[in-house]
Amino acid sequence: MQKIEHIGVAVKDVDFSEQLFEKLLGVASYKREFVESENVITSFFQVGDSKIELLQATNPDSAIAKYIEKRGEGMHHIAFEVKDIYAEMKRLEGEGFTLINAMPKFGADNKLVCFLHPKTTNGVLIELCQAIENTSGS
Amino acid sequence: MQKIEHIGVAVKDVDFSEQLFEKLLGVASYKREFVESENVITSFFQVGDSKIELLQATNPDSAIAKYIEKRGEGMHHIAFEVKDIYAEMKRLEGEGFTLINAMPKFGADNKLVCFLHPKTTNGVLIELCQAIENTSGS
Repeated sequence: MQKIEHIGVAVKDVDFSEQLFEKLLGVASYKREFVESENVITSFFQVGDSKIELLQATNPDSAIAKYIEKRGEGMHHIAFEVKDIYAEMKRLEGEGFTLINAMPKFGADNKLVCFLHPKTTNGVLIELCQAIENTSGS
Repeated sequence: MQKIEHIGVAVKDVDFSEQLFEKLLGVASYKREFVESENVITSFFQVGDSKIELLQATNPDSAIAKYIEKRGEGMHHIAFEVKDIYAEMKRLEGEGFTLINAMPKFGADNKLVCFLHPKTTNGVLIELCQAIENTSGS
């Protein structure tokens, strides 16, 4: 794991929470992104070498909507940056962790991502993420 | 806010979880510390520019014991490093956030700390922390 890439925070209303986190962190959100595969709108804040990612569900079936229904708003996951997501998934599976997706999938912010099941990680939902390089022409 | 200083994770058994996070992060815990004022044993892992702090209650009245009883193990708080904790507390109070402690208190890892009430921060328990400088002789 190279660093904490971001912390995901489940929110009900991204407009409201964007203003709140702007006041809290003293910086503005630098981008919003709709992630169709996850049914969420995300909003990103840079803090030092890491990010805070707000997540609002766009659909009641979204994992974020279900999370908020069960536990309320709050910290949803920790994402770690990895150099080689395939190698790290293999290593972690060998160590006994359960991968939620068997193959990396496309996440927000131009990343390949994989989640680890919180039952095997002390109740913490862990995301691995690797930046997608522009490999066109290579 | 300068950076994410650490993420606090509430655990039932620090011995078990230290081994688990060692496997997860691929690094060993670099120190343990007993924080008497909070009734917790902490264990720290360095990841990039930030840390993961495991927290095990040493007393059933500890905030960590109550947290686990109510919500289970998992992410407990996000700590942000600040340059001047007094100035930041004043700024945040002015912005409408509720401080849990009106004056900074001594936390783990040689820090002055202050917590913000999660009711005013989207359900996220926020810690501000400032390293205590060695000012002897000055």
